[in-house]
Amino acid sequence: MIFMTTKSDEYKLLDTIKKPADVRNLRFSQLRDLAMEVRHRIIEVTSKNGGHVAPSLGATDIAVALLKVFDPLKDRIVWDVGHQSYAYKILTGRNDRFDTLRQFGGISGFNNIFESKADAFGVGHSSTSISAALGIRVADELMQRDNRAIAVIGDGALTGGMSFEAINHAGHLGKNIIVVLNDNAYSISPNVGALQNYMASMLVSKSYNTLKEKIWDLSKNLPTKARRTFITGVQKIEESMMNILVPNIFFEDLGFKYVGPIDGHDIARMVRIFNKVRHNVVGPVLIHVVTQKGKGYRIAENDARHFHGVGPFDEKTGHSLGHKGVSYSKVFGDTVCRLAEKNERVVAITAAMTDGTGLTEFAGRFPNRFFDVGIAEQHAVTFAAGLAVRGAKPFLAIYSTFMQRALDQVIHDVALQKLPVVFCLDRGGLVGDDGATHHGAFDLSFMRLIPGLIVIAPRCSEELVAALEWAAGYTEGPVVIRYPRGLALHSKTPIPPIVPGKSEVVRPGKGIAFIGAGKAFGDAEAVCDLLLAAAPDLDPCLVNARFIKPLDTDLLEKLAQTCEHIVTIEDNALPGGFGESVSAYLANTSASVHCFGLPDEFVPHGTIDELKGMLGILPADIFSKLQPMLLPDTTP
Amino acid sequence: MIFMTTKSDEYKLLDTIKKPADVRNLRFSQLRDLAMEVRHRIIEVTSKNGGHVAPSLGATDIAVALLKVFDPLKDRIVWDVGHQSYAYKILTGRNDRFDTLRQFGGISGFNNIFESKADAFGVGHSSTSISAALGIRVADELMQRDNRAIAVIGDGALTGGMSFEAINHAGHLGKNIIVVLNDNAYSISPNVGALQNYMASMLVSKSYNTLKEKIWDLSKNLPTKARRTFITGVQKIEESMMNILVPNIFFEDLGFKYVGPIDGHDIARMVRIFNKVRHNVVGPVLIHVVTQKGKGYRIAENDARHFHGVGPFDEKTGHSLGHKGVSYSKVFGDTVCRLAEKNERVVAITAAMTDGTGLTEFAGRFPNRFFDVGIAEQHAVTFAAGLAVRGAKPFLAIYSTFMQRALDQVIHDVALQKLPVVFCLDRGGLVGDDGATHHGAFDLSFMRLIPGLIVIAPRCSEELVAALEWAAGYTEGPVVIRYPRGLALHSKTPIPPIVPGKSEVVRPGKGIAFIGAGKAFGDAEAVCDLLLAAAPDLDPCLVNARFIKPLDTDLLEKLAQTCEHIVTIEDNALPGGFGESVSAYLANTSASVHCFGLPDEFVPHGTIDELKGMLGILPADIFSKLQPMLLPDTTP
Repeated sequence: MIFMTTKSDEYKLLDTIKKPADVRNLRFSQLRDLAMEVRHRIIEVTSKNGGHVAPSLGATDIAVALLKVFDPLKDRIVWDVGHQSYAYKILTGRNDRFDTLRQFGGISGFNNIFESKADAFGVGHSSTSISAALGIRVADELMQRDNRAIAVIGDGALTGGMSFEAINHAGHLGKNIIVVLNDNAYSISPNVGALQNYMASMLVSKSYNTLKEKIWDLSKNLPTKARRTFITGVQKIEESMMNILVPNIFFEDLGFKYVGPIDGHDIARMVRIFNKVRHNVVGPVLIHVVTQKGKGYRIAENDARHFHGVGPFDEKTGHSLGHKGVSYSKVFGDTVCRLAEKNERVVAITAAMTDGTGLTEFAGRFPNRFFDVGIAEQHAVTFAAGLAVRGAKPFLAIYSTFMQRALDQVIHDVALQKLPVVFCLDRGGLVGDDGATHHGAFDLSFMRLIPGLIVIAPRCSEELVAALEWAAGYTEGPVVIRYPRGLALHSKTPIPPIVPGKSEVVRPGKGIAFIGAGKAFGDAEAVCDLLLAAAPDLDPCLVNARFIKPLDTDLLEKLAQTCEHIVTIEDNALPGGFGESVSAYLANTSASVHCFGLPDEFVPHGTIDELKGMLGILPADIFSKLQPMLLPDTTP
Repeated sequence: MIFMTTKSDEYKLLDTIKKPADVRNLRFSQLRDLAMEVRHRIIEVTSKNGGHVAPSLGATDIAVALLKVFDPLKDRIVWDVGHQSYAYKILTGRNDRFDTLRQFGGISGFNNIFESKADAFGVGHSSTSISAALGIRVADELMQRDNRAIAVIGDGALTGGMSFEAINHAGHLGKNIIVVLNDNAYSISPNVGALQNYMASMLVSKSYNTLKEKIWDLSKNLPTKARRTFITGVQKIEESMMNILVPNIFFEDLGFKYVGPIDGHDIARMVRIFNKVRHNVVGPVLIHVVTQKGKGYRIAENDARHFHGVGPFDEKTGHSLGHKGVSYSKVFGDTVCRLAEKNERVVAITAAMTDGTGLTEFAGRFPNRFFDVGIAEQHAVTFAAGLAVRGAKPFLAIYSTFMQRALDQVIHDVALQKLPVVFCLDRGGLVGDDGATHHGAFDLSFMRLIPGLIVIAPRCSEELVAALEWAAGYTEGPVVIRYPRGLALHSKTPIPPIVPGKSEVVRPGKGIAFIGAGKAFGDAEAVCDLLLAAAPDLDPCLVNARFIKPLDTDLLEKLAQTCEHIVTIEDNALPGGFGESVSAYLANTSASVHCFGLPDEFVPHGTIDELKGMLGILPADIFSKLQPMLLPDTTP
């Protein structure tokens, strides 16, 4: 496919697609052209808005083929993760809004049941689709509905344990669900895991079929009686082993019929097979479809890793148009490399996020001490616990939102055993355009409840480095270091050394204290500045919380004596968060505690400032909320 | 084995085992006798203390064989869950303390690294062992240690997704770990899942081996050239498919060498195979061992389901010596049956805890609406979400401590989509003798942080019924109903109807208010009674919180105006818990808030009263802590 050289601005076919049924009315030759136009559209919009370019280009033909066969308003199609479903969105009534993709008030980068009836299930995190499709099918069967339930899942998402739990259950129940395995041999990082190697072997299975035929031929030379025994024997084996010579055993073992592998860019073939499965197959079936990530946009094909998820880029060259600079992930990655140089026990672990978490350099330089476990956060944590119990020093880098997957392992396998695992929680707080499924809004709350866990939220690059260095030498138990998405800030002032449970008093003062946690320290500082600008006689105290747990109770008690008002600001949901812990600790003092943070609701997508504006937690908002209390005279 | 009829009180061999190495010095014939004595010992103690009888009897011979071959102080043996490791505990230096099993201050019912150097990794929850063993192996390799890492895992635990994540990663890395699959075709409830059916098929694999030999024989009749092609072909297939005619493909596909199935009660054979694997096999290997749950104690063999985990029982008859009565689980089970009668959309789900959660009757009466998904909490939640998105009304019954496994699914798949799943959290709060791994100490905290979730903690049987009935009719979003382990209390007073976010004021009053959450309402009532006894003129207010979320803010504001002191009591950890939310809500009022609950530490095993006594949270403790403040005149 070379359309990038013949790109046209016209969407002849696409413009005729007003509703999903319009796809079903197209001829095969038109479907191919439609897929091409859809790819144009994806590149046109994502080059401006950013997004998951390569996955969606790779799955465009699957979307077209599915929509030729199934009715997305009746049949229930669940896209795993959903970042590959842009074509599906465009073709199910969202083309006119597609240019608002991932923008504040616009359509989501994932599937969302509140956005369209064609979205059967909301997604964002990996490996949920088979569970959801099975639940959907069981409910539909209970209510005697005759629609189909379909899960479209990537090979990467298949490494997540809950996919296996769902396959095991679906195979046991024998319900009619269709799983389309979109195998691009490449999850977010290049795929890992034994299953992946195994699936790769399926692709060379033709030789076995040839061999099988040869053996059958040979039986012709046997004496009649022996031949009969031979044939019966071989057939018996075949039956019980299913099609043993095509290596489909894994899924068949688990009760699925296996179809494939087939070319995931051959729309006509997929349509034939989807139709056959739809009408003839009873029970769970897995259709193995092989695709190329970035398909149709050569620049993305050649660098699918980069184009997995990107910011705005130049359509012609593929070059990023986003801000350049050093992210917290990069600071983390560089620091952990330095720590690994000095200490041979340092090990780094990621769950399929080598690039995203900043571990690419580490992976190259310390291959024996680097572990990408696949999309398997639960295993990642307990694997780290196993390393730590034998004296290694694991740094597990994981996005805050995905850490929700492994709460039990942090409690049960790490904290209970006081094992010195360092959890490096990237993307804490609001993440922006990935929206509700991806904000790291809850980590301070669900980490803070764990006994013995130390939770640090650095406010700047220098403090992140100091925290990592400190944690590298800490052997008494687990440490969480939580930092936000985006460019690393630098401190205006030298940062003091890390002392467990001690905050950083950036500006001593009295009367009122602002305590900021992590990135929100910047907001605390800004509010403090606004106050000083409005009332230069005041002497507010400004504190960087640094330790979310243990609380700096000495400082809090001192503040309670010298301050009438204590204001906490955090980039975390208020329920169970840092502010509540301060508030509860100071409940019976005379100081008033005012907590600002994310509300007790799911926050949609948009830029971080748009979202904070919407929630009324920009520094100016916070200041104006405090103003009547702090400066009653200046308020009208 | 019929030892129950010839039971002797002597432990001739067992008494000679002072250290693990003593097992290695025994002859094969002695090992069998040792195993018999160990079984005696297990029954002797568990009949008094209760415990996991059937799993440990089933795995006794495995423990003996492992200890004949491996050195538990050097090799690292990880028992999955650990409830089957009593024999291992007895034989690794803990026989003299074994009669303190599961008792306050005694040894734990699970493996614990703080209890013995022979316990390589602390366990309690399922499916962690392969991850831990892999981490251990990788660390040992980094540090050039030559010991072995061994995971012993049941077929039930294998259905947990993180086992699969670990197998996938181990197969990919190719490290030397040994997985002993203890297959008793029976997890906690009778096992479910396609993998189980598949493994059962392995047990009949002998016929295939016979068949295979027959085919080889037949090739003798072929002409020489054809014969060579035939043999080469068959060998080629064999190589690439490993031992294709024994159905071991599943594990081999994932990069494991597969050995078995072998008789898990034939100690000599296991020893031979463990030795062979230890010395010859490189890379991950799975040894499939078939055992019988309850082996050697006929009463447990015949009712392995009941004898999975029991209280004290009569050794001769097997009859329970524990308290009889109706548990909250039973109240739940009965109620959900009634709801299912009235409403065809009601569905019940359990993760391998049909009996434990009280769903046995439901399973029998509504087989089409009952789903045991195996030990697979993540899938259970998202499966429920799939059901709910299509209009079914799922009641998911799960132990509080295991709910930690599925936090992300509750947030991402249920709450974000406002799906009306009812989470029935059994075993909330302290559970007693199962100890630190099993207390439901954190659920109020990690549930309360989720937007839109309604969290109800009934104080008695009647309120549990009312909450379930109310939740059955609630369609706006998810509901959590959290109740404790043990006998259901009855209310002394009629309970008012459920109104979202409204507490129950059991005793109106002023000056001081006691608010109890769930089971801890009983403690609040007791403290209130103690206060009234000490100071009959006081008029304390007594409140049953009922709703943990949303908070009854109207009532709290009223209380803050009429009460100087507000005391919260909960059966949940204080960080992020109910008390903190009350405290934070009332931070800027004149009322003092005093929170009582579980401390910010892991709580060991013992009876619930022993534990509360140790923690100083018995009603009398709470009263005496409050006394100086509430009754300054009566305090010396």
